Amino acid sequence: MAKEKKAPRPRAQTPKGFRDYFGAEVTERADMLAAIAGVYHRYGFEALESSAVETVEALGKFLPDVERPNEGVFAWQDEDEGWLALRYDLTAPLARVYAQHRGDLPLPYRRYAMGPVWRNEKPGPGRFRQFYQCDADTVGAASVAADAEICAMLADCLETVGIPRGDYLIRVNNRKVLNGVLDAMAVTDRDTQAAVLRTIDKFDKVGEAGVRELLGKGRLDASGAYIDGVGLGEAQADPVVAFLTSKGADASATLANLRAAVGASDVGAEGVDELEQIAGLLDAQGYQHDRIDIDPSVVRGLGYYTGPVFEAELTFEILDEKGRKRQFGSVAGGGRYDDLVKRFTGQPVPATGVSIGVDRLLAALREKGRTGQAGVGPVVVTVMDRDRMADYQTMVAELRSAGIRAEVYLGNPKNFGNQLKYADKRNAPVAVIEGAEEKAKGVVQIKDLILGAEIARNATLEEWKDRPSQYEVPRAEMVARVRAILDGQA
Amino acid sequence: MAKEKKAPRPRAQTPKGFRDYFGAEVTERADMLAAIAGVYHRYGFEALESSAVETVEALGKFLPDVERPNEGVFAWQDEDEGWLALRYDLTAPLARVYAQHRGDLPLPYRRYAMGPVWRNEKPGPGRFRQFYQCDADTVGAASVAADAEICAMLADCLETVGIPRGDYLIRVNNRKVLNGVLDAMAVTDRDTQAAVLRTIDKFDKVGEAGVRELLGKGRLDASGAYIDGVGLGEAQADPVVAFLTSKGADASATLANLRAAVGASDVGAEGVDELEQIAGLLDAQGYQHDRIDIDPSVVRGLGYYTGPVFEAELTFEILDEKGRKRQFGSVAGGGRYDDLVKRFTGQPVPATGVSIGVDRLLAALREKGRTGQAGVGPVVVTVMDRDRMADYQTMVAELRSAGIRAEVYLGNPKNFGNQLKYADKRNAPVAVIEGAEEKAKGVVQIKDLILGAEIARNATLEEWKDRPSQYEVPRAEMVARVRAILDGQA
Repeated sequence: MAKEKKAPRPRAQTPKGFRDYFGAEVTERADMLAAIAGVYHRYGFEALESSAVETVEALGKFLPDVERPNEGVFAWQDEDEGWLALRYDLTAPLARVYAQHRGDLPLPYRRYAMGPVWRNEKPGPGRFRQFYQCDADTVGAASVAADAEICAMLADCLETVGIPRGDYLIRVNNRKVLNGVLDAMAVTDRDTQAAVLRTIDKFDKVGEAGVRELLGKGRLDASGAYIDGVGLGEAQADPVVAFLTSKGADASATLANLRAAVGASDVGAEGVDELEQIAGLLDAQGYQHDRIDIDPSVVRGLGYYTGPVFEAELTFEILDEKGRKRQFGSVAGGGRYDDLVKRFTGQPVPATGVSIGVDRLLAALREKGRTGQAGVGPVVVTVMDRDRMADYQTMVAELRSAGIRAEVYLGNPKNFGNQLKYADKRNAPVAVIEGAEEKAKGVVQIKDLILGAEIARNATLEEWKDRPSQYEVPRAEMVARVRAILDGQA
Repeated sequence: MAKEKKAPRPRAQTPKGFRDYFGAEVTERADMLAAIAGVYHRYGFEALESSAVETVEALGKFLPDVERPNEGVFAWQDEDEGWLALRYDLTAPLARVYAQHRGDLPLPYRRYAMGPVWRNEKPGPGRFRQFYQCDADTVGAASVAADAEICAMLADCLETVGIPRGDYLIRVNNRKVLNGVLDAMAVTDRDTQAAVLRTIDKFDKVGEAGVRELLGKGRLDASGAYIDGVGLGEAQADPVVAFLTSKGADASATLANLRAAVGASDVGAEGVDELEQIAGLLDAQGYQHDRIDIDPSVVRGLGYYTGPVFEAELTFEILDEKGRKRQFGSVAGGGRYDDLVKRFTGQPVPATGVSIGVDRLLAALREKGRTGQAGVGPVVVTVMDRDRMADYQTMVAELRSAGIRAEVYLGNPKNFGNQLKYADKRNAPVAVIEGAEEKAKGVVQIKDLILGAEIARNATLEEWKDRPSQYEVPRAEMVARVRAILDGQA
């Protein structure tokens, strides 16, 4: 190993599952997050940046086993502080922050948080061990007005970053309705409840008949394997199927179907009432069901949340890796989880929130052409005479003062071809050239690299031949002519 | 320990040396960094966000000992990847990134990076184990034009974030000049060279006579302890003192003094030439010596860097904790370090860069009143009738559409006093009230909380008595009247 050999060269490599982000990858994400932060802020949410490192004890869930904590987090033993770990999401730290600072924080406390989280998982294609999350949560508000607000804010966020109305849908369901369904089924045993939940999760794949089979005796799946059923009676499956297929033509039809599905269950009725309130609040604010809709087929997260759950889907179509059309799919989700702070203080504190999938939403913006134009590089001022570096620096300073991104070539200027190759690699729109001859004449050469690339691509077209991609202009006009090229008016 | 007791409550506490940032603390820093990123970008620098986690091998310097890596970094043993660690700065990752991606990156490569770094050190007052760095570096440019550019960019950054010209000075020195001084002293032994460097570092404290003593036989310090000297001859101290006191009335005087100090040393002459070029380049671009100055008394970092070094100082005065005036001091520093990538590739790659002390510069902006105004909270719409939540949500939606930050009270609305206390805690400028009576009359009550606080503070002043801090306005005028209060025109 490294210790035996004498100073071997280290490998220049990120650890597996980690990566670096370059240029526009960084700035496009930063711009998107800044736009989202603007919406959160306008809704009265306050920024929070909690420590990236937490005690394993405060993070919870991942307590040290014998030697090392469980898989799932990156953890290490600190000499003074015991086991420490990198946060694996932004919700567990919110619980710790709220418990720690609750005397100073307003109640309710609306906060947003954005930043990297770390997961100690096996990396795979497109699956990283460090990635961004972007959350907004309201702590201490029991009213479903808080849930409705989060849904409205999420819709505003999507439109603000560039997802047009009609290209997204926020679907809302409620865990309490599902609890009502379990009541109506007379399923009280926890294990059986969990088995019903798992079956509901398969509705998308196996459909109504499949769910009935899986709740009953079992089902032969496509691969020929026999999947054991939950073992319920045939009639017991009715409320589940009624629940899963309750989506009506409008919210009131859906709500009526749900009321039927939960039967006489109190918690079920409470859940339907909550959905009705949410629909009413959103409707009054102008968020109609083409943007935010009650939809009982949203089952993701139902096992985790305790009340309303919501999921934002992008409904426009993209081509998958095999060239087939499919909907873009989910970019955000959330819901109500009322035991957030209880582990710390013993007291239940209601909370609701949403997490936006940063990488997914960025990918969607690229699909829609709403971002990705940031790739234009700086104007490159070439160096023809290395003793006149001050002149070239003055030229870039002038360009920058005019708000134009510009740089002087700082490599070895001997080979002019290398300077143009550099400009190409920088994706420079313009190169500026001032040799001794130009200097004497009081002019500079301006090379329109966008037009130059166009001409190179369309070399056979006569029309391009007449348009020079390089021309001489008086030194005093440099900034104006570069500006004209950048504005597409050259 | 945690395992013996049954589910004890975890402590809600950040690990020692870590902290959370709330509201304006987060957004003011984000705004400052965005402004700096704008300057970096205009200079042609590209954003880079490298992985927070690196292999210990790639980070270097901190190699695993027997069981655990050295102090200084947070590190842990990964099952597949060996020892991993959190980055302790942004320069070591740049070296790894450049070595890993050099085939794809432009040469020279200008990049900036901003983000948290982690140090496994004993925490102390104001000393944290996670903090922000903000760096810009040019890799692969041997020319001192790259160093001059960094200095100019640093000046632009300071002015852009709100440090006025005259309140800062960027001082430039050169390690090669110091090497020339060592030549002139005929000190070739590495240990003696290091001892001379350590002595130079004490110049600020002990002055010229102290430096002479410490280079010679030794010195009795203020505490009565005798500090052994380096043991050089008296004449050998002359070049060091000439170097440290070479600052002249202008750059050319300083450069002449430095030429004398380095005598016949080639590397010394090269160092002085470089400083002369830097001064010339900056002067040509309009950065006179009131902004960027050649100053051989800058010794911080001279041991680390290989060529030009620079330090940005804020020259305005503040009161220290004992109420004494002192200069604000250093907020950024950097220099040339030409062995950046060599450990990975075996080939030396020239590099130069700067690191801005994010927390220091933020503190300076607060001192200057350039930030800290972000503390105004949202307009709070109170809830008088919990069944009319939709009305209140519609009111905040209207305010937000007008670009006004607003929220509805989401706690238990029973006690109206609590709602006003909440508005106070939120630092709300305005509260809006619409009870059943107002609703019937088509009006709302607007409570000017800024004016209210003013009146409370100046309760004896008659003039305030006439200005009501709460008044009734037609519901349709709500947005306009709130806007008027926020604009100070009410």
